[in-house]
Amino acid sequence: MELVAPIVSEVQRRGDDAVREFTKKFDKLDLSQIVVDPNALPAPVMDDAVRESFDVAYDNIRKFHIAQAREELIVSPMDGIECRRVSRPIERVGLYVPGGTAVLPSTALMLGVPAQLAGCTEIVLATPPHTDGSICPEVLYAAQKCGVTKILKAGGAQAIAAMAFGTDSCPKVDKICGPGNQFVTAAKMMLQNSGEASVAIDMPAGPSEQLCIADSTSNPSFVVSDLLSQAEHGVDSQVVCVALDGFDKDVFAEELKVQVEALPRKEFVEVALSKSIFLRVRNLEEAVRFTNLYAPEHLVIAVDDPEVYVEKVINAGSIFLGHYTPESVGDYASGTNHSLPTYGYARMYGGVSLDTFVKYITIQKLTPEGLLNVGPHVETMAAVEELHAHKNAVTIRLSHLQQS
Amino acid sequence: MELVAPIVSEVQRRGDDAVREFTKKFDKLDLSQIVVDPNALPAPVMDDAVRESFDVAYDNIRKFHIAQAREELIVSPMDGIECRRVSRPIERVGLYVPGGTAVLPSTALMLGVPAQLAGCTEIVLATPPHTDGSICPEVLYAAQKCGVTKILKAGGAQAIAAMAFGTDSCPKVDKICGPGNQFVTAAKMMLQNSGEASVAIDMPAGPSEQLCIADSTSNPSFVVSDLLSQAEHGVDSQVVCVALDGFDKDVFAEELKVQVEALPRKEFVEVALSKSIFLRVRNLEEAVRFTNLYAPEHLVIAVDDPEVYVEKVINAGSIFLGHYTPESVGDYASGTNHSLPTYGYARMYGGVSLDTFVKYITIQKLTPEGLLNVGPHVETMAAVEELHAHKNAVTIRLSHLQQS
Repeated sequence: MELVAPIVSEVQRRGDDAVREFTKKFDKLDLSQIVVDPNALPAPVMDDAVRESFDVAYDNIRKFHIAQAREELIVSPMDGIECRRVSRPIERVGLYVPGGTAVLPSTALMLGVPAQLAGCTEIVLATPPHTDGSICPEVLYAAQKCGVTKILKAGGAQAIAAMAFGTDSCPKVDKICGPGNQFVTAAKMMLQNSGEASVAIDMPAGPSEQLCIADSTSNPSFVVSDLLSQAEHGVDSQVVCVALDGFDKDVFAEELKVQVEALPRKEFVEVALSKSIFLRVRNLEEAVRFTNLYAPEHLVIAVDDPEVYVEKVINAGSIFLGHYTPESVGDYASGTNHSLPTYGYARMYGGVSLDTFVKYITIQKLTPEGLLNVGPHVETMAAVEELHAHKNAVTIRLSHLQQS
Repeated sequence: MELVAPIVSEVQRRGDDAVREFTKKFDKLDLSQIVVDPNALPAPVMDDAVRESFDVAYDNIRKFHIAQAREELIVSPMDGIECRRVSRPIERVGLYVPGGTAVLPSTALMLGVPAQLAGCTEIVLATPPHTDGSICPEVLYAAQKCGVTKILKAGGAQAIAAMAFGTDSCPKVDKICGPGNQFVTAAKMMLQNSGEASVAIDMPAGPSEQLCIADSTSNPSFVVSDLLSQAEHGVDSQVVCVALDGFDKDVFAEELKVQVEALPRKEFVEVALSKSIFLRVRNLEEAVRFTNLYAPEHLVIAVDDPEVYVEKVINAGSIFLGHYTPESVGDYASGTNHSLPTYGYARMYGGVSLDTFVKYITIQKLTPEGLLNVGPHVETMAAVEELHAHKNAVTIRLSHLQQS
């Protein structure tokens, strides 16, 4: 927070100039134009197979997120009273897509698709550019497909601050979503508490984690491959294997050794694994109890009959059932969102969804009959709270009705 | 924040003792037992009419909020892939009900009803006690009706901190909801950024506001009564009257003078009014444009045909339509929630709803066919992102399928 605060306040004060300076300082890149319109750029050069895979992922994510849209709700709790609820897009949103050592174009889809479906009118995507000033082609492709209106070529706290306050070239947004490193997260958390910025965020983000439940029906090499796909995210990733009777630890350990050896990110993975847990439990109840306490971002239930677990799980971000549902299908293309609550926050947050990009407005309409029905109760309750003008707003109307 | 930080850290460090000391210091009250079980207390002594009014409000709020529950979502984006979404209660929640100069038992209903419907298993209600140590009877009545499990007799930052961290007598909660003064709000905002507390909040809360759209069809005395019901909340409340042609400012001003004179909270109201706005607009489009920029917590559309406005409103907390829907019906008993976004946050937040007390978990299940369909695309995307273990989790399964 101490490192991030001066960056945020410089960007608030000096806008584009400050963003350019931080980009020069941190990313060693001197950019005159930091904001571009993706629709004014040519379609990126990409391998056909890559394009097709992104198209499939886009379609699946779209299908699952469009199903999350809600009809207008209409309820009549009493005669003459109609209560409704409508959804409206959050008009201006910011999507952070991490870059730097790894490119994460899949995150552009995971944030861009629901923003597009929600009908957000200004969609700013911030991502650190390559050292030649260009944007990763797959990120650009996703941005064009999702109707992103501006790309901010910047990363870190400076990108978050630019979107939160707005600059000459970057529109101010109302909500900032997406994962990032500790500087990005610190800036998001700081700014969600700033009345001057007046910006919301999706959720706090910490290191990624996975919990896998395995029993005698599990395939140890599948289980290991899933845990490793989590562990390769970074040295602070955490993986937990919850083993029931019949899932052999020695076989697991042997398989782990073999698979780790074959990974290019071996050094990350080994650090992550050194902090990870193999937990032996006696039965399903113990497995579920630990799972709910741990509240994993990703929960893999790698057993023959995973449904018996599902109904008992209260705290998890996303769940992967059975032997043929590796976590990576959800990370990319099954249709669910991969922006999920970490660090135990699955106790109270869900992942990014269509609802991340809309808000709900309630509406009420009373007829004279409705006010005759409920008005006297409102008067009574307002009197208890000694809010006389609240009471009077009803009384004055009831008097009018009695006179007419 | 500077005043609140030491209170929060004392409560984190010393628990109940610190809460007791702050209650003694700020509320001049020496309480040995700060947490009580509302169900172990006798039913409060209340006027029958008051009880009936709270029962009506409870029923209406319940009917509108139960309609917000979502069925399990099931989508099959591709053959062999099933994506689902289920809701689960946030298990432990804290509800803050302001006390002090005014009692606000209606807030206990507005928070308690959706928490109860969501199925939260631990519902802690914090409220400052009377100087004799007792709880306002209507708050207790609402707590019993809503299945509140514990009442924390404390207010301010110390109550928020006790719920966020937990103490010997107060359970730790996962999310804290409800309005409060600036100390309560500061504590909530501070704690939502604390990894140690690990707690979410409903939304930032500022001073209350109302915008009323009036035209030639509006009844000036009704309009004034609504604006005053907002103004009486406190000296920092803001009211805005957006007037179209035919709504006469002189008649309005005269009516305002008469009604203000009759109010016991006249001195609050006059300060609030001094900072308020009467805005003349030329047409519906201008009225709506200003409304969306202002993003009012409460929007009263006091005209004959309010529906033409509704479809154009993007930013508002709750909307009140026509001549017989004063804001106070929504504050108490129409069924909608009165915990609403203030200070322009209606741009990106909705009010408290059933969703405030649940989270959504996504679930995916692939058959071997599903993995054959999507797996190669996941491998391609993982290769683009250079996440080899992600790719391998698919490859290892596809190889297994090809062998068998």
